[in-house]
Amino acid sequence: MKKFINSIDTLLDESLLGFSKAHANIIQLNAQPHFVSRINPPKQGKVALISGGGSGHEPLHIGFVGSGMLDAACPGQIFTSPTPDQMLAAAQAVESGGGVLFIVKNYAGDVMNFEIASEMLDCPNATVLVNDDVSLPKTHSTGRRGVAGTLIVEKIIGAAAENGADLATLKTLGDRVNDATASMGVALSSCTVPALGKPTFEISDTEMEMGVGIHGERGHETVKLTSATEIIDQLASVINDDLKPKKNQSVLLHVNGFGATPLMELYLIYDLAAQFWQNRGITIARSLVGNYTTSLDMAGCSITLTILDEELLRLWDAPVHTASLRWGC
Amino acid sequence: MKKFINSIDTLLDESLLGFSKAHANIIQLNAQPHFVSRINPPKQGKVALISGGGSGHEPLHIGFVGSGMLDAACPGQIFTSPTPDQMLAAAQAVESGGGVLFIVKNYAGDVMNFEIASEMLDCPNATVLVNDDVSLPKTHSTGRRGVAGTLIVEKIIGAAAENGADLATLKTLGDRVNDATASMGVALSSCTVPALGKPTFEISDTEMEMGVGIHGERGHETVKLTSATEIIDQLASVINDDLKPKKNQSVLLHVNGFGATPLMELYLIYDLAAQFWQNRGITIARSLVGNYTTSLDMAGCSITLTILDEELLRLWDAPVHTASLRWGC
Repeated sequence: MKKFINSIDTLLDESLLGFSKAHANIIQLNAQPHFVSRINPPKQGKVALISGGGSGHEPLHIGFVGSGMLDAACPGQIFTSPTPDQMLAAAQAVESGGGVLFIVKNYAGDVMNFEIASEMLDCPNATVLVNDDVSLPKTHSTGRRGVAGTLIVEKIIGAAAENGADLATLKTLGDRVNDATASMGVALSSCTVPALGKPTFEISDTEMEMGVGIHGERGHETVKLTSATEIIDQLASVINDDLKPKKNQSVLLHVNGFGATPLMELYLIYDLAAQFWQNRGITIARSLVGNYTTSLDMAGCSITLTILDEELLRLWDAPVHTASLRWGC
Repeated sequence: MKKFINSIDTLLDESLLGFSKAHANIIQLNAQPHFVSRINPPKQGKVALISGGGSGHEPLHIGFVGSGMLDAACPGQIFTSPTPDQMLAAAQAVESGGGVLFIVKNYAGDVMNFEIASEMLDCPNATVLVNDDVSLPKTHSTGRRGVAGTLIVEKIIGAAAENGADLATLKTLGDRVNDATASMGVALSSCTVPALGKPTFEISDTEMEMGVGIHGERGHETVKLTSATEIIDQLASVINDDLKPKKNQSVLLHVNGFGATPLMELYLIYDLAAQFWQNRGITIARSLVGNYTTSLDMAGCSITLTILDEELLRLWDAPVHTASLRWGC
């Protein structure tokens, strides 16, 4: 295993410390239990938005704490759910009279722990469950996983929360964005979890993993590596069949790198995905290309499509000032 | 070789097309010859800033075209200098009466081709040569290489150009930023150039390449992989001995990923580097952490330090609106 680390036990702490020093103008780190929150307390009455999940997906979620997006994020150990006491401490730190909205990716541990925190919290609260990964059928036993669409949910309801929307409105809006969003990924290599010290799965030099998850979960199919056009057509077709965008509808197209795939390839993938939907009469109104929901050092990418209406477009465009997403302010 | 490509011959074109579609609100792509320029023409009399170099280092330089930074960038083939006709066409497209300043990384091909373009150009022009890589001695036959410090030169003179500084002032300022900047890198793996189809150098599972270049050039030493603290202390010591920042001086600390190293590790590296200089009484006034000057899919990082004075700090903080660096607007 070749990584820049001192010890597996201190990796997360050291990394969070570096993150908090590098972005001290935006966020602060609470050490015990771990959570990241804005340095400026939220306006009185604003709904507090809190997300979290296993670490190893940076910048998700800590990189999205700041004005116009999250109020706090709870990082768990690598690929491990954060604990209810993290969520509770974060909620108590940032709740400002408007209640708390949790944004939770659909993984059993995350769902359970956020549920416990929700029950322990003595203020109004609700949860938006993100399950945008269409590589699994809707009927899958634990449901679909939450992947790169999560940041789109966080950005859009973050903007609405900043504008003063109440808890019920934000919960409805979050569910609506989730329903309008579909993602699918492909891996060319596995990631290596530091505590394991070896790749999570074996894959040959001529194969790829279609429908891979963001924790190095195997996808639904190991297939022969083929041309970028064929790969992207496959991913986009599954997304398109699920989401069924209509001709002339506007969409947000997000090409996400898993960590080890160069930007040069991500832009090529973006071009192919954009062509796929443009050929179907869809308007690519907004784009986001880069490493946003990563899986440690996995080579691969995911494509996410969100169908936009005027409200969602306006909220996407609203100012955001976080470590990893910044515009309009 | 596992990459998302259709063919080696079309990779760059397809990638640039995707880049230009994804950022059509900021830049435009000229197809023949290749250059990227701002969609808004520069103000009359503004000095035009143009950079360029081999592709494979994205977002450098195309991601830094936009308000407050470059006017145009010329991407060569992968790890290959752009040609003089690209530079000349870019210069003719963006020159607005204030002359042209070329920002050139110190590689023989880049230096030669920018020199030819400079001679062919029939307007006042000057060149800032960036040579921040202190892994090579100052007496090295071709001089020191230009690496991740380049974006700091581009950002700072970009801000001054936007404020109306003239060609001579910008040339002096660019040289001053270059002199105040030192970088050094380490690789844990080689990159794979698509046209070669195999890693540029072989390195065992227990070794690293200290002082590596951004094209997969071997460093000055292949050594045993050790703890992150020891690695960063080594890099920082070489930089510190070269630049000799004084106690209480303010610096910009830039931790750059080469492409395949996760953000989680880059923040850990940032923490260690920040400690190194804080322990020596240096003030880390500004920070930048992420993949900015990459080397395709190489795992590794570089550290860059720039000694700031009030003017450089103000110019670094000035608004910038490019695909990959954005604040204050």
